[in-house]
Amino acid sequence: MTFFPEVDEPIPYQGPDSRDPLAFRYYDRTRKVAGSTMERHLKFAVAYWHTFKGGGQDPFGPDPVYDRPWNDAPTPMEVARRTLDAAFEFFTKLGVPYYCFHDRDIAPEGDSVAESNDYLDEIVQRAKLKQSETGVKLLWGTANLFGHPRYTHGAATNPDPRVFAHAAAQVRRAIDATIELGGSGYVFWGGREGYTSLINTDMGREREQMAAFLRLAVDYARRQGFQGKFFLEPKAREPSIHQYDFDCGHCLNFLREFDLRDDFMLNVEANHATLATHSFEHELATAAAAGMLGSVDINRGLEGVGWDTDNFAMSLRECVLALLIIRGQGGLRWGGLNFDAKVRRGSFDTVDLFYAHIASMDVFAKALLIVERVRQDGVLGLAGERIRERYAGYRRGLGRKLMAGETTLEELEDWAGSLGEPPRTSGRQEELESILNDYLYSTRIE
Amino acid sequence: MTFFPEVDEPIPYQGPDSRDPLAFRYYDRTRKVAGSTMERHLKFAVAYWHTFKGGGQDPFGPDPVYDRPWNDAPTPMEVARRTLDAAFEFFTKLGVPYYCFHDRDIAPEGDSVAESNDYLDEIVQRAKLKQSETGVKLLWGTANLFGHPRYTHGAATNPDPRVFAHAAAQVRRAIDATIELGGSGYVFWGGREGYTSLINTDMGREREQMAAFLRLAVDYARRQGFQGKFFLEPKAREPSIHQYDFDCGHCLNFLREFDLRDDFMLNVEANHATLATHSFEHELATAAAAGMLGSVDINRGLEGVGWDTDNFAMSLRECVLALLIIRGQGGLRWGGLNFDAKVRRGSFDTVDLFYAHIASMDVFAKALLIVERVRQDGVLGLAGERIRERYAGYRRGLGRKLMAGETTLEELEDWAGSLGEPPRTSGRQEELESILNDYLYSTRIE
Amino acid sequence: MTFFPEVDEPIPYQGPDSRDPLAFRYYDRTRKVAGSTMERHLKFAVAYWHTFKGGGQDPFGPDPVYDRPWNDAPTPMEVARRTLDAAFEFFTKLGVPYYCFHDRDIAPEGDSVAESNDYLDEIVQRAKLKQSETGVKLLWGTANLFGHPRYTHGAATNPDPRVFAHAAAQVRRAIDATIELGGSGYVFWGGREGYTSLINTDMGREREQMAAFLRLAVDYARRQGFQGKFFLEPKAREPSIHQYDFDCGHCLNFLREFDLRDDFMLNVEANHATLATHSFEHELATAAAAGMLGSVDINRGLEGVGWDTDNFAMSLRECVLALLIIRGQGGLRWGGLNFDAKVRRGSFDTVDLFYAHIASMDVFAKALLIVERVRQDGVLGLAGERIRERYAGYRRGLGRKLMAGETTLEELEDWAGSLGEPPRTSGRQEELESILNDYLYSTRIE
Amino acid sequence: MTFFPEVDEPIPYQGPDSRDPLAFRYYDRTRKVAGSTMERHLKFAVAYWHTFKGGGQDPFGPDPVYDRPWNDAPTPMEVARRTLDAAFEFFTKLGVPYYCFHDRDIAPEGDSVAESNDYLDEIVQRAKLKQSETGVKLLWGTANLFGHPRYTHGAATNPDPRVFAHAAAQVRRAIDATIELGGSGYVFWGGREGYTSLINTDMGREREQMAAFLRLAVDYARRQGFQGKFFLEPKAREPSIHQYDFDCGHCLNFLREFDLRDDFMLNVEANHATLATHSFEHELATAAAAGMLGSVDINRGLEGVGWDTDNFAMSLRECVLALLIIRGQGGLRWGGLNFDAKVRRGSFDTVDLFYAHIASMDVFAKALLIVERVRQDGVLGLAGERIRERYAGYRRGLGRKLMAGETTLEELEDWAGSLGEPPRTSGRQEELESILNDYLYSTRIE
Repeated sequence: MTFFPEVDEPIPYQGPDSRDPLAFRYYDRTRKVAGSTMERHLKFAVAYWHTFKGGGQDPFGPDPVYDRPWNDAPTPMEVARRTLDAAFEFFTKLGVPYYCFHDRDIAPEGDSVAESNDYLDEIVQRAKLKQSETGVKLLWGTANLFGHPRYTHGAATNPDPRVFAHAAAQVRRAIDATIELGGSGYVFWGGREGYTSLINTDMGREREQMAAFLRLAVDYARRQGFQGKFFLEPKAREPSIHQYDFDCGHCLNFLREFDLRDDFMLNVEANHATLATHSFEHELATAAAAGMLGSVDINRGLEGVGWDTDNFAMSLRECVLALLIIRGQGGLRWGGLNFDAKVRRGSFDTVDLFYAHIASMDVFAKALLIVERVRQDGVLGLAGERIRERYAGYRRGLGRKLMAGETTLEELEDWAGSLGEPPRTSGRQEELESILNDYLYSTRIE
Repeated sequence: MTFFPEVDEPIPYQGPDSRDPLAFRYYDRTRKVAGSTMERHLKFAVAYWHTFKGGGQDPFGPDPVYDRPWNDAPTPMEVARRTLDAAFEFFTKLGVPYYCFHDRDIAPEGDSVAESNDYLDEIVQRAKLKQSETGVKLLWGTANLFGHPRYTHGAATNPDPRVFAHAAAQVRRAIDATIELGGSGYVFWGGREGYTSLINTDMGREREQMAAFLRLAVDYARRQGFQGKFFLEPKAREPSIHQYDFDCGHCLNFLREFDLRDDFMLNVEANHATLATHSFEHELATAAAAGMLGSVDINRGLEGVGWDTDNFAMSLRECVLALLIIRGQGGLRWGGLNFDAKVRRGSFDTVDLFYAHIASMDVFAKALLIVERVRQDGVLGLAGERIRERYAGYRRGLGRKLMAGETTLEELEDWAGSLGEPPRTSGRQEELESILNDYLYSTRIE
Repeated sequence: MTFFPEVDEPIPYQGPDSRDPLAFRYYDRTRKVAGSTMERHLKFAVAYWHTFKGGGQDPFGPDPVYDRPWNDAPTPMEVARRTLDAAFEFFTKLGVPYYCFHDRDIAPEGDSVAESNDYLDEIVQRAKLKQSETGVKLLWGTANLFGHPRYTHGAATNPDPRVFAHAAAQVRRAIDATIELGGSGYVFWGGREGYTSLINTDMGREREQMAAFLRLAVDYARRQGFQGKFFLEPKAREPSIHQYDFDCGHCLNFLREFDLRDDFMLNVEANHATLATHSFEHELATAAAAGMLGSVDINRGLEGVGWDTDNFAMSLRECVLALLIIRGQGGLRWGGLNFDAKVRRGSFDTVDLFYAHIASMDVFAKALLIVERVRQDGVLGLAGERIRERYAGYRRGLGRKLMAGETTLEELEDWAGSLGEPPRTSGRQEELESILNDYLYSTRIE
Repeated sequence: MTFFPEVDEPIPYQGPDSRDPLAFRYYDRTRKVAGSTMERHLKFAVAYWHTFKGGGQDPFGPDPVYDRPWNDAPTPMEVARRTLDAAFEFFTKLGVPYYCFHDRDIAPEGDSVAESNDYLDEIVQRAKLKQSETGVKLLWGTANLFGHPRYTHGAATNPDPRVFAHAAAQVRRAIDATIELGGSGYVFWGGREGYTSLINTDMGREREQMAAFLRLAVDYARRQGFQGKFFLEPKAREPSIHQYDFDCGHCLNFLREFDLRDDFMLNVEANHATLATHSFEHELATAAAAGMLGSVDINRGLEGVGWDTDNFAMSLRECVLALLIIRGQGGLRWGGLNFDAKVRRGSFDTVDLFYAHIASMDVFAKALLIVERVRQDGVLGLAGERIRERYAGYRRGLGRKLMAGETTLEELEDWAGSLGEPPRTSGRQEELESILNDYLYSTRIE
């Protein structure tokens, strides 16, 4: 049985001149770039929720609109089994090495904790078999702690510890599943770990509850032998009015405050950056500068739109800046590039899933080739010599001393007084943008 | 005397492989595209204010930082003369066909209306001579009705008619100057024609004052033989909290309400679209659909930033979408592409002006070549066959009748009842984005 | 059978000192203000959708969380009947004179147009009976043209005229229902009448389709003897990325362009103003200045939050400004104050519905009393003498002439020249805000 | 010589029924509230920059418009002396206990470091005398490290250490001045400590430079015997595109990262919260929960407006929420309420300064009285019993154990399994808002 009859076999690489929407122009998984394959550099992962379980609903359209034949089955578990078949068919036809899931994406919630666990166990075993058959791997797992009505007031941050306990139960099993399926990461996105109004919220206490929860999870996972990384995923708001993991800055503050930095890194999403009024590259650079950039959710928000649209990433400039930062830190050891993106509500055919993933993979593949060229040339600010030179004054003389903490305001005042007004140097932003444009639009990349 | 010693002669076209920041890769002014030259398609104009008179000040940096040697002169009029020399040197070295100005950019305000007029007259005559020597032309003129303290509460919308009269005096002379210098357009951007608070404002009355003002200007200009177009320029806010010309929709409403559509078109700016939470292409398409897209201010705002940053346009995707719309309406007969953009405060050298203009011109030039290819191929939504086909049902049968006003709700209900649920068709947004990306990133354009 | 056992009888008026959350402090329906009752001034209407049919779902919580016992019934029609019982119980216990609905709120969609019509007919007859028993009236009706998957690409603006026909069928019957139940208004909110991307959209054509649709509706309704008003409801976006009825300015432009102003007014919503970056009072004043303020959806958005939260209106300042404008135009003849507001997802008990409506009604009631005082005193900008005085210069001399179109730029220049620099007058914004605060916080209102 | 002839003597307290714009309705400085005076609770400080040195300029109005007679003097130092006279006249006539300044507000920059120091020294001595004559005190001082062109690329974060040295020289002297004048705080607002583009920025390095700078300042000040607190002031952007001190979360992260928490607290500004898409109360609560709320800049931003408008605070609701948090932590020991607010550009008369400050002080004074009542009653979420009760489950049984780190995911899963689905409890947000409204609008406060 096939769920994607529109695609016969793995999407082929056809080169830049292809105009076949079911072929790659740049993504050539085995192509070598800087000593490794494109596949290993990019580590694409399909998001189980958007791609297989999303229905295209929105706040004014409560019913699913997507054509998803695998949902036509008599029981929730039978739907889950067919979805798994469809998913691995899609992974292999698309040619991606990884996928990511929430517990409730792959298996339904039962009527009791025990039943939910049984459901999950069965699907995990089936998935394990599929993985071994296909070579597709799990990038990271997570638990859905926001969809069920019990999490209305939060999961770990719920005022009722009984809800905390239910969340703990889910996380335990989601960690088990992640270990069983060989995932190298485990994600916490706390969509309900925030507030709707401060008027009925004790923010200080709720953040402590969240820290206690994360500690319990780390402790459990390490006892089970999990050697991967935990990822905290920033988002400013939605569904909460304020989410405690607002952006990378907030997450880092939280991890420092509660001494969780050894086990955690960040999972940075493009659209979540937008919602916090940041650029994607800002969030990536913030995480990377702290040594905490663990994984990336690749998608895109829209200008002036204040909710999470999760469009597919299509901008070469954004992808180049992202990969400059990622390559600058030596790649994503524990994570990868997860498509946390969904086709538009109006793109309801299954073939639209291929169009979207292929187009976005190709943008990243071209970006990877560009980034390699930029790095070889060593010119651009985010990666290169010019920026090193710009701050050279801090590597010599009084500049060096002040960074080493070996001077005083008095000495610096004397220096300033004796120097007089220092000459000014242009920041050359437009020239650097022009150089970036050369790489984006003029350099021959094939 | 030269103000731009870093550039000896006109910036050359060197083709896509050039990496010289003082050369063009795509902009080849005499190159023919669809039967006309690049120069005539793009009609670039340098903005006198940002490029020559801006100082890089911002709300927390009140002093000018740009190195602008033409400002070193003993009197305001001598500064004005030197600025004019510098401007035409820049125009010819850059190789642009047009410029735009406010009255107070090119000549200083005097101590009286008469003195201001005299100053302006002298500079206009000098500019006329420069134009005839160089071939550079005026695209459009305008009056600065926002900088002087007298305009604090508005110009045409000021509660005091004496201020209205001062504004009228300025506009009279700015129209004279525009006619004298052969401009094909005259712009009204009403930065102070709005309010800071409704608590002390009669919005209905102020909009009527604005209409009266525009009618006076049209009447005057036509009496002087002006055959060009007036352009209203939308902006949401800044410096006003709310500007009456909020966006294209608001401007069109205003022009319809006060019956000014015959003489006016719109001057659409990219960054102003951003401030109204629109995309640039949305505003262009809105104006074009109404037959009112007259001229364009090319620049760019930044994601999440709520003021007018006026960065130089550097995004190929944005430029392609803009030119698809502009070419789709047969170009800009009365207007052009005006660089309402400024170098960053930190890019204070004169050479930064070249870097910025060249880079942005090249993006538009490449965009023009891409747009030509898209139009030839006829594929893409904004310009092509697929979108025509999408709405084909309205060109036949009951679809045609309903557009012609020849049916009723009753008949449509019967139709709906007899048809049952219509089949659904995917909007294919991601496929179209992928096709657009092919043009942006894969099509060989040289 | 009772659905609201927590409230025995109509919510009583207890005066400002009451601290009973199930009593009014200010809303005293029969109290006379300026010759009419509070009830007639405010014309509160409960929104059927949020209050009875909403489930508290959000984009990350797909399942309903509200405790709504009337939904526990074996068939959709039985649910509809029980909901109607609950609704009228709520209306009478709360003590509101009006309600508003979409067709699909009060009756379910059937398997065919005919079945849907039958369902609606039955419920309309039951509602008519309820109205006559209770005295509660219909303020306005509308059709839900956004929820069903067939409307994914729009209703009137759908590329497929068959979908247009289905929408027409719904509107026909929703108009019939509105007439049958005595509604004085009929609303069009075009949530899907917009686009997700311009790349697959012909905006000009879609707007023409929308105009054709509205004309058909007006024509039909007038033939059926409908004497009320049609209301267009602005919203910037959501679910569309851009909605054609972006804000009041856009709606007015549309109505002018397609010559629909005689039959239409605007239904202005507070939270929709926020989404367009306007203040609520701005949108109200814009509609009122055009003589087009027909009805108001009272609710509230949250600072920095980019989607429609539809919180209950709780700000006295906002309500006072709104009522100053509404009273300034002599009230809302065809419309009223419709609670397009929902309790938070976490406020899932039925009693929370009372808390929310009571609190918001009380804020408006106090605001009405304040507004009456402001109007008597004649001081404040939005309503008073000071603002008239501010523009006095346009009612005499050259100011009067210029408004009458009896002058020229030349004459105005002469005037400006002879006057010299006019003296400047402070706008006194802070003083006026202080006066407003006196009314809000210090004036004894009981 | 008087600069404020419109006010003869200190603004009197006249009670809630007064309608005199030059009198207080609620602010009665010696009135006792909870054992202390209003003056000591509120600790109002006038901001030297906006009130005395601001000119009402904006990005489109480069010239000052305010009528400020103290600026009419032949030399910068004479202007500085007159400004000081005007300032103390204003402080005493308004009746505020504190003021705040930047070094360059009170004394001009000289041609050399030494000259600047001399200028500052003279004015500091004059101010000291004025303070002792009037009893008005310095709340905090700071250095202007953003206005001078040399700081275009940042002060501490400048790529050139010579600029760092100039900044160090200024801070040294500004600390000296603060100590000399008895300030209990010293503020760092890093308007240029951020970036315009990441393309030419090394964010990691710049943040280290900033930390080195703060350490030098702390070290110096402690050596001089400064016993007060340092305050870091968050702001998202403007003039930078991204400021490193984006919001409280970012500042706390920075202080933790560089181990600066012992010497620093935060100075939270209302309008800066808005720019980061937070509510004012969110930022205050974030700082307070971390034990780091040191001082507050009271003002207000406008809905939908993306720059720092610095309107005067006028909203009773906002002030009540702010004071609930401030009183909840026992007040502001080291800081106070600084008016970082400016009259609108159109409010250019000196008397407008009084109108604005008086109105805002009165709102806070009424808010203080309300907050006292709320605290006595113990009801509201932000301060009271109900919120304690809401989280009671964490103070007993397994809830208590989990907060103490004495449980495991396994034990919690067992608990969840044995409990089954926990009952849900409404968050009662609307009821609590209604209770808050009772305090704001109905409780008799005089």
